[in-house]
This record gives sequence, C-alpha cells and structure tokens, in this order.
Amino acid sequence: MKKEIRILGIDDMPFSFNDEKTGIVGVVMRGGIYLEGVLKSEVEIDGRDASDAIINMVKNSRHAGQLKIIMVDGIALGGFNVIDGEKIYNETNLPVITVTREKPNMEKIEDALKKHFDDWKERLEIINKGEMHEIKLGYTIYSKFFGIDEKKAKEIIKLATVRGAIPEPIRIAHLIATGIKKGESKGRC
Amino acid sequence: MKKEIRILGIDDMPFSFNDEKTGIVGVVMRGGIYLEGVLKSEVEIDGRDASDAIINMVKNSRHAGQLKIIMVDGIALGGFNVIDGEKIYNETNLPVITVTREKPNMEKIEDALKKHFDDWKERLEIINKGEMHEIKLGYTIYSKFFGIDEKKAKEIIKLATVRGAIPEPIRIAHLIATGIKKGESKGRC
Repeated sequence: MKKEIRILGIDDMPFSFNDEKTGIVGVVMRGGIYLEGVLKSEVEIDGRDASDAIINMVKNSRHAGQLKIIMVDGIALGGFNVIDGEKIYNETNLPVITVTREKPNMEKIEDALKKHFDDWKERLEIINKGEMHEIKLGYTIYSKFFGIDEKKAKEIIKLATVRGAIPEPIRIAHLIATGIKKGESKGRC
Repeated sequence: MKKEIRILGIDDMPFSFNDEKTGIVGVVMRGGIYLEGVLKSEVEIDGRDASDAIINMVKNSRHAGQLKIIMVDGIALGGFNVIDGEKIYNETNLPVITVTREKPNMEKIEDALKKHFDDWKERLEIINKGEMHEIKLGYTIYSKFFGIDEKKAKEIIKLATVRGAIPEPIRIAHLIATGIKKGESKGRC
C-alpha cells in the first residue's frame, strides 16, 4: 500500500426538511493527511441522485486521474438519498468505502423507507448491497467496501486515521460541511 | 514556542463585483497541522467590516479560549475591505499575522483607493499600519505582524508551513473558500 495514495472523502451538509437540496463536500487528501483539494456539489434531499453526484464529482475533478479510493460518511447523503457503492465503483473504477460511527439500524431504516417512499424496494436493495464490517482501531466504526477486499480496505482506513476512529478525509469533509453551513463546525470525532 | 498552538487562518471566498457580500472562511489548526474546526462568516465587498468580522468570528467561536494567533491571507478581504491588524489585536488579545505571496504594490493600491472611495484616507491609514517583512522559507512571502515580534512571528510561520511557502492555516482556508464557492478549489501554493 502506497502511503501517499489520494483519497476522496465525502460528507453532506446539514439541512432542514424544507430544503430541496443540500451541499456535499469532497476533500482530496494525500495519504489521508495532506489536504490537496476541496470539491463541492449538491444532492436532492431524499432524492435518488447521490451516486451520480459522487460519480460526477470524481469525473469533473482535476484530481480524477490521481484518486485511488472514495470514502463516504454514511450509507446515504441528504437524508435517504442512498449511495450505490457498486455503481460508483463500476463507473469510476475507484473502490468505495462507507464509514459510519454507529451501526445502522437496518430494521428502522427499512420501516422509514416503506413509510415514505414509493420506490422503497429499490432504495432498500441499494442500501443492502455489501456486507457491514465492524472495524476496531481503538474505537469502533462500521464500514462497507466495494471493489476492494477487507484486508486492503482496513489498511487504508488505518493509514488515513490520525486520532480517534474517523479517517481524516471523512473527518475533514464533515468539519467543512458543517462549518460552512452553520458558521462553526461541530465535531463528532 | 509550543508546537501545538492553535492558529486561526482566514481567507475570503471568490466573488464577482455584482455581489454585495462574500463569505470568509476560518480554519482552526493545532500546530498548523491538525484541523480542529471550520468557521464561516461574511463581509461586504469593498465594505469596512472585515476587522469586525474577524473579531466576531474569534469571539463567537467555541475555540476562542484556545486560539493563540490569527493569520490572514492578504491585507484586505472582499476587495478593499481593509484589515486593521492593530484593532483586531487590541480587541481579541491575539497577535495577527498577514501573509501575501506577492509584495503588495502600495502605489497601485493608493491610486485605486483614491479613485473609488470617499474614505480613501482612512482605508490607506489602516492598510499602512505595520511594517511589511520579506520572509524566505525556501520561497518568499510578505508578512505584517501585530502584537508579536518578528522573531516569534517567523517561528510560528515556520512551524505552520509544511510544504511550499504558505502556512497551512492559510493554505487550507484558501482551498475551502475557493472549493466551496467554485465547486473545485484552485491552489496557488
């Protein structure tokens, strides 16, 4: 594993349910340590465009050729705008790692999808792709991998994690996303 | 000099002259290396509120008590909204370091102020405060200091500079400010 690999970390901005869209922030980090670029796009709240937004963020970036992996905070952006890690991997040729601090409660998610969305089956199918792994690096995080095996994914998560449990590209995308929207960032790490 | 000192780095977002205001981004970094927080505020384009915006950014932040120094990209934010380093130092009790990559052409600035502003004398007086220092760390930058002596200011600039010439808090504030506004950051470092 090259220590200087470029990782794209993505998180969404906080929003209220009156909003139609919310911003998503991407950070390009070398070796998960040195910030090289900041990207911004948007997704529809509870829409279906999160995967395409990530794919286009990669394809339109001048960092595209250097990126080696995508890390996303959570399994959806902008509410229930579910992320299809398999599709993103197939279209960008970059492995995808999703990271959550809490173990997603799949029963609750399924109930919410059924209650709110006519296309709940499609969303559920997307959200159920991949296996949820419990990763302990001092703290525990929950992670899915697409286009990369468990051993390599863990290696990347480890090299990108400086303090606490959250890999830097996701921690920093989160600080920027909340800070820019709210005026001051709120850490969860 | 404590290596882990908290530095607030500030830069403005790009704008067009049709805009009335533009965003300013503050980043809180420990030792100029580890990002701890992101702050956002705004200033009037060509207004007179830049110093107060910085003072309030500091005072309203939950990082206020930990900050030890303020670094600003340039001698004005949002066009000719000039920064009064002396005032900021007096009101926040934090030393201020301004950093520019190019040596400001004071003659051109004076001409522009005279041409565009009734209050050009006041703006010029503010912008002329402090002595411009040429600092060579491999590359050259131009810097003014308020509330701190040259030796200590250089020490802080050095410890906060990882690659190239620009201290990390300013480099990262710049990446965020341009990336969020334009969709992708434009590096000058």
